Parts: sequence; structure tokens; C-alpha cells
Amino acid sequence: MGKVFLVGAGPGDPDLLTVKALRVLEDADVVVYDRLVSAGILSLARRALLIDGGKRRGEQERIQEQINEVLVQHARAGRKVVRLKSGDPMIFARGGEEWEHLLRHGIEVEIVPGISSALAVAPLAGIPLTYRGLAASFAVIAGHRESFIRTDWAHYVALDTLVILMGVENREYIAECLIRSGRSSSQPVAFIENGTTCEERVVESTLSQVAKGEVEVNSPAIFVIGEVVRLRKRLIGSQDGSLAIPEGAACAKERNR
Amino acid sequence: MGKVFLVGAGPGDPDLLTVKALRVLEDADVVVYDRLVSAGILSLARRALLIDGGKRRGEQERIQEQINEVLVQHARAGRKVVRLKSGDPMIFARGGEEWEHLLRHGIEVEIVPGISSALAVAPLAGIPLTYRGLAASFAVIAGHRESFIRTDWAHYVALDTLVILMGVENREYIAECLIRSGRSSSQPVAFIENGTTCEERVVESTLSQVAKGEVEVNSPAIFVIGEVVRLRKRLIGSQDGSLAIPEGAACAKERNR
Repeated sequence: MGKVFLVGAGPGDPDLLTVKALRVLEDADVVVYDRLVSAGILSLARRALLIDGGKRRGEQERIQEQINEVLVQHARAGRKVVRLKSGDPMIFARGGEEWEHLLRHGIEVEIVPGISSALAVAPLAGIPLTYRGLAASFAVIAGHRESFIRTDWAHYVALDTLVILMGVENREYIAECLIRSGRSSSQPVAFIENGTTCEERVVESTLSQVAKGEVEVNSPAIFVIGEVVRLRKRLIGSQDGSLAIPEGAACAKERNR
Repeated sequence: MGKVFLVGAGPGDPDLLTVKALRVLEDADVVVYDRLVSAGILSLARRALLIDGGKRRGEQERIQEQINEVLVQHARAGRKVVRLKSGDPMIFARGGEEWEHLLRHGIEVEIVPGISSALAVAPLAGIPLTYRGLAASFAVIAGHRESFIRTDWAHYVALDTLVILMGVENREYIAECLIRSGRSSSQPVAFIENGTTCEERVVESTLSQVAKGEVEVNSPAIFVIGEVVRLRKRLIGSQDGSLAIPEGAACAKERNR
């Protein structure tokens, strides 16, 4: 009997894989990967059959069933199967569901955590999620339609830092709800597109600008709301006005070599 | 001029370091480490001078100043300096402060994220923080005295999953506040001591038991509050009642070799 590893690929830079994830990938017979996993990371699975498990809109449920089936089949055939998800496999990634499905089919599962984009992308762009005296808590929230319909945004009003994933398309609605619930409309917001990659782009604005539809931004992106966004100027702007850290960790890596 | 790397050591298992963190550690001249960084991880810094930066209670401010000074001195002497923190360097770890201090002294800084205990420890123990239909948001909260005095726990009532770090000593007070604010007293709570190590111990209870002081638990531990705690039975309990995944990732590693 084979085994399924639920593996986090991290935010994009292959160097941000864990040592364990790298070893498991190099040794895999089959890799079922998600849409946002980079080509650089997939190329590390030298001997594996690669299966695209990316979900297209409106087909999520059907494709999820297919993925579950593929994982069970290959494990039963005695193969080492890696289920590779961007970020961490257990944060908004259905990792728990797949784990449960595999257990029900008698298949051994091992979790290999990854650097979650929710936590790493903003700090690498100069925005710590916590900062003594400024932020002692943060919340990570799914901002896509199916979850935010039942979200009572009033509960997020007093949390120090908010990180919204999968919420770019609904940014105006989310910003409106937060302002209506009492969060200050002048509070800073930062969108980070393609975090940690060479295509990283950071757009700073305010809740009020976001609510008015004045901010242009594209997926994939996360956004961060809170006073910590102001730290970016202090942490990224260096003495001579040049950038103190590069725009993306992956670019840093390329430059350092 | 040298350089300072602010590096996350992850939750304890050396295999959960990132590839980049491992490379930077192996290459470091000086490593200034925190209290919770394991001996197994420190031993990877083969050629480095190791400096204990662990903070004892009541001396945090003085020791922080010393650390800042040591980092600047060694970087100015042209050395590769690693500031090594358990978990992620930017989550409740003063990473942002140290970054700012170094920049003010003209020293180059690079951030190397780590697997945050806040996100990895619970899933590895069978408790996903998010789960479709059950939890679409989570908050991570510092539970130590200096931060929770100004915390209005009412705001956490409706969040799906709460992860409390550094809150073991104040667990009764925190549970009381949450119940008083309207969170159900029967809601499940899991404490995870020494997460991902061979000494990992999980204690399941309810908010009401915690508030009444009925739960014995020791630091270092995190605790998780929310319906997702109930998933543990489904994910960890296997067909024959034995454990489907090991108690700690580090133990898994030892067994698999």
C-alpha cells in the first residue's frame, strides 16, 4: 500500500519549501498539484507523474471528487503520492477534507506543512502582521463569495490586523462592510499581487479608496488591513530611497547567486 | 559590511526548516537564537558562534537591547549573522522591531520566513484551522499578560477558530472572558504541549472546563478553540483505534528513517 503526503508548497519561491517537502517531492511517484504551484517547484519532482488538480470556476466539486479518486487509486497501487498545494495544505485548501477521505479509504496520510502565503507574503513585503504596541492579534479570512456571505464583518472591527485571502474580486464589498461596522475609513490597506515572486506588486491605499472602487489590482493577491501597513515605509524605504529588501524573495534569490 | 538574516526555525522539527533557512544557517558566522529553538536545529549551524538570546522574565527589555547591539556589532564586523527565532520571525517575535533597528543602523536585512507554530502545530495534531462549512476564518492572538489586558475578547466571539499563543498561564481568565462575551461554554478546546516534537501532548477539553481550572497543561503550549477541534477524532483515530498519524512530526521523521 502506498501513502499520500499532503504537502505545502509555500508562497512560490522554491527555496521556501521545507526540507521535508523537498525530500518528499524528489522521491514522489505521483504529484497532484494545485493551480498556483509554480513551475520551478514542480520541476523538483524529477521522477513523478504530474497531474493537474487545478480547479476551474464552477467545477470545483466535480474536480475535487476526481482528485480524491486519483489519490486513492495511486496510493492503492503502492505509489508515493504527493498532494501539493500552494501555501499550507491545511489553510483554506481542503486539506482536512482530503485527509478524512483518504483515512476512510484506509490510506496512510502524512501532513507536511508549508509556509502559508497568509503569513509570509506581507512580512516579506515589509508589513509585519504583529508589532509590539501596534498589533497583538491578526485574523485570516477567506474573502471569496461562498464564505463571506455568512461573514459578520462587525466581528473584525477591533482585530488589529486582517489578512484577506481570495478576496480581491470582492474588495469593494469587504471594505464597505468593514467601514459600515465601524472600522476607520482612513485605515491603510495593502494589496500584494504575486507575493514573493519576481512579479510581485504592492498597492497601498485606504479602506475608503478600496470601498469606492479606486484601487486596481489583480488575482492572485492577498490584502492586509491595519495600522501595521504603515510600517512598510519604515522597513522598506532605506537611507537613499532605494529598496532595502527586494520586491520578492524569489528575485532576491536570483540576485544573490 | 555583513548582513543580518531574520530566520524562522519553525515549530521544532529540523525537517520543517525551509531550504533557504537551512542554507543560511549552515553558512552563518554568528547565530543569535531564542529560548525555544531546539538543539537539533542549532547543531546545523556548524561553523557559527552561538549566542543565547533567550529572554528571562522581567529582563525582556534589557536583553532585547543587548540583542540589538550584538546584531549590529557582528554585522559591522563583516559577518553573516542569523537571528534565529522559533516559528516565524515576524509573528509575535519582535522581528519587525529588530528589522527597523538594523535598518536605522544601515545594516542590510533579509527575512527568511519559518513555519509558524500558530498555523502548523494544530493541523499536525489532527486539527485543521479551517474546514469547509465549519471554519472559514481564524485568529491568532497573543495570550500573555501585556497584550491581553487591552484585549476586548468580545470581538473574538464569532470568529470560527481561535489560536492562542503564550496564553497557557492565563487560560482560565481567557476562557472566562470568552464565555462571558457569549462564546458557548461547551465549545471544544485543545491544548498542544511541545507541538511537533516527541514530547508532544494533546489535552482536549471544553471552554467551561478550562474556565473552572480543571485542565492541567504546561508551557510551551498553544491552544485552539473552536468546532474544528472535534475533527481530531475523525482525523487521528484510525480504523483499529491506533493513531493514524504520529504524535509529533519529529517522531515521524525518526521512525521513517
